[in-house]
Amino acid sequence: MDETVDNKQIVLKEYIRGYPKESDMATQVSKMSLKVPHGSNGIVVKNLYLSCDPYMRSRMTKSTAVYVEAFTPGQPIVGYGVAKVVDSGTPKFKKDDLVWGMTGWEEYSLITNTDTLFKIEHTDVPLSYYTGLLGMPGMTAYAGFYEVATPKKGEYVFISAASGAVGQLVGQFAKLFGCYVVGSAGSKEKVDLLKNKFGFDEAFNYKEEKDLAAALKRYFPDGIDIYFENVGGKMLDAVLLNMRPHGRIAVCGMISQYNLENPEGVHNLTQVIVKRLRVEGFLVFEYYHLYPKFLEMVLPYIKEGKINYLEDTAEGLESAPAALIGLYSGRNIGKQVVVVARE
Amino acid sequence: MDETVDNKQIVLKEYIRGYPKESDMATQVSKMSLKVPHGSNGIVVKNLYLSCDPYMRSRMTKSTAVYVEAFTPGQPIVGYGVAKVVDSGTPKFKKDDLVWGMTGWEEYSLITNTDTLFKIEHTDVPLSYYTGLLGMPGMTAYAGFYEVATPKKGEYVFISAASGAVGQLVGQFAKLFGCYVVGSAGSKEKVDLLKNKFGFDEAFNYKEEKDLAAALKRYFPDGIDIYFENVGGKMLDAVLLNMRPHGRIAVCGMISQYNLENPEGVHNLTQVIVKRLRVEGFLVFEYYHLYPKFLEMVLPYIKEGKINYLEDTAEGLESAPAALIGLYSGRNIGKQVVVVARE
Repeated sequence: MDETVDNKQIVLKEYIRGYPKESDMATQVSKMSLKVPHGSNGIVVKNLYLSCDPYMRSRMTKSTAVYVEAFTPGQPIVGYGVAKVVDSGTPKFKKDDLVWGMTGWEEYSLITNTDTLFKIEHTDVPLSYYTGLLGMPGMTAYAGFYEVATPKKGEYVFISAASGAVGQLVGQFAKLFGCYVVGSAGSKEKVDLLKNKFGFDEAFNYKEEKDLAAALKRYFPDGIDIYFENVGGKMLDAVLLNMRPHGRIAVCGMISQYNLENPEGVHNLTQVIVKRLRVEGFLVFEYYHLYPKFLEMVLPYIKEGKINYLEDTAEGLESAPAALIGLYSGRNIGKQVVVVARE
Repeated sequence: MDETVDNKQIVLKEYIRGYPKESDMATQVSKMSLKVPHGSNGIVVKNLYLSCDPYMRSRMTKSTAVYVEAFTPGQPIVGYGVAKVVDSGTPKFKKDDLVWGMTGWEEYSLITNTDTLFKIEHTDVPLSYYTGLLGMPGMTAYAGFYEVATPKKGEYVFISAASGAVGQLVGQFAKLFGCYVVGSAGSKEKVDLLKNKFGFDEAFNYKEEKDLAAALKRYFPDGIDIYFENVGGKMLDAVLLNMRPHGRIAVCGMISQYNLENPEGVHNLTQVIVKRLRVEGFLVFEYYHLYPKFLEMVLPYIKEGKINYLEDTAEGLESAPAALIGLYSGRNIGKQVVVVARE
């Protein structure tokens, strides 16, 4: 018997320019079968937690120069999430398995390409963590810090957007590794979190600093060895002036630039020569082969209480557009998650 | 008996801003002893060839943020050169030895720090080559291409300021290595040289291209793997749009920016993430330990006629200021050398 349900979905109405607005997205209801179509090796999942991530902005614009495809207007938005298998056409997954990976912004999804899904083996942690600490942002922090920034004990590390999903983890990894860590964020509340909850050595509110280069000089009188770049623009310019010789800039994101029609210019790139800097961009999906190694490191940290993780939770699928938009104004405090269903 | 001579010198009059002019320098004559002072372990040399190099601009401004000290106004300009030992206070060098390394813009110099001097062992090549092909620019091309850009056979290589002292060599090394090589330069004559004398696959005059990104797209329909960066600014922006995934940008110099009070902004740095680029600056002096290995590679190439090297020769110490200034307007064709004396 084919079980068909009403399936609520969040769709992108059309491709956008500039800052995204809630009204660029719409809620709609479609009919959806909870059975995998005959002959398909996909799976049908019930979506539990959806992840709001800065990179999603790039999928809201039609472009040939990006590493992920644009969303399809009128179709559900696609993103990372945690889901439960309802029906499976592949031996890799069975009913009631929990998975994380690419799914749709809807109550139920048919996932035809299951290659990029990870089966969740450890359920003694909050399931929503698989959108963050134990999912893509966690792997991003891990790969960016250990693999790209190649840290040495005792080095000076600066992290922008430091209270975000990735930044808060990079800072904690860096502290556990033995580095001196300073973060920037956009409110007093976030700065307090960095210092009091995440154990950063120092933190500052970039919005209160007229001269970012001078602020960095204050926190790093001897300069910065590693900059974990999440924002771009003016902050990058200020950092370049404060890097130490042979410093590394792991370029994870440039959220300050994603919504600009004309990105800001960065003026201090001659510092790359003067200081012999390595500026290296990376994308997490090229590091997923390290996921088991990452879990091996991070699960004990979580269980021993050595890592804190802060989520900003929006309740209900309908809240997803506002939650996503909030990323670009810095509204969220910690990892932005949308709860579609708790089980 | 102490032999004292009149020693003609080129001095920087005072620190400058913006583009340097000939009149920022002056010729003066001092008295100079051709004997090493008693107790000194320095050497006195007769300067033969002096090198004009783009980085010298940075030494004409007082700044705390550079890797080399500023010149001292009123004192001779300091730079790379080829010289002959007249008197020696160190067992490392003896009278009539030929050396290359840091010397003064004057007829005779007392060099007190001989650690950075290289003794010239191979004299069956033009001595002036030790200001270029066999000296600092040669090592720069070698280190930047092999060590920083980490080339693979068959890769697509783009070089800006390609007919300059370093660029012409990078292109030839890349061709010998099995890469596809395109260079940009600022005149038809230079473009012809790149194609006809240096064996580049293609070359173009950047001054004739309204849209640099489109020009690069024409020469690299499949994108650029390695960019050997000598100019910065607008060219870098255009290159960023044309890089291939995992491309490398070896940042050797940014000559277009050295004379600007406010460097141009570079706008396309999000490409560093999208394409997972590595942008790495380097300074040749950190690679001098590879000099013997470099000679081992390059001397046979020279003798077999596999490498061409073009010098632009200015005759006489008095011509040095104009020769140096000419670098920043692209007047020179090939490596700019000043002949002080031929032996």
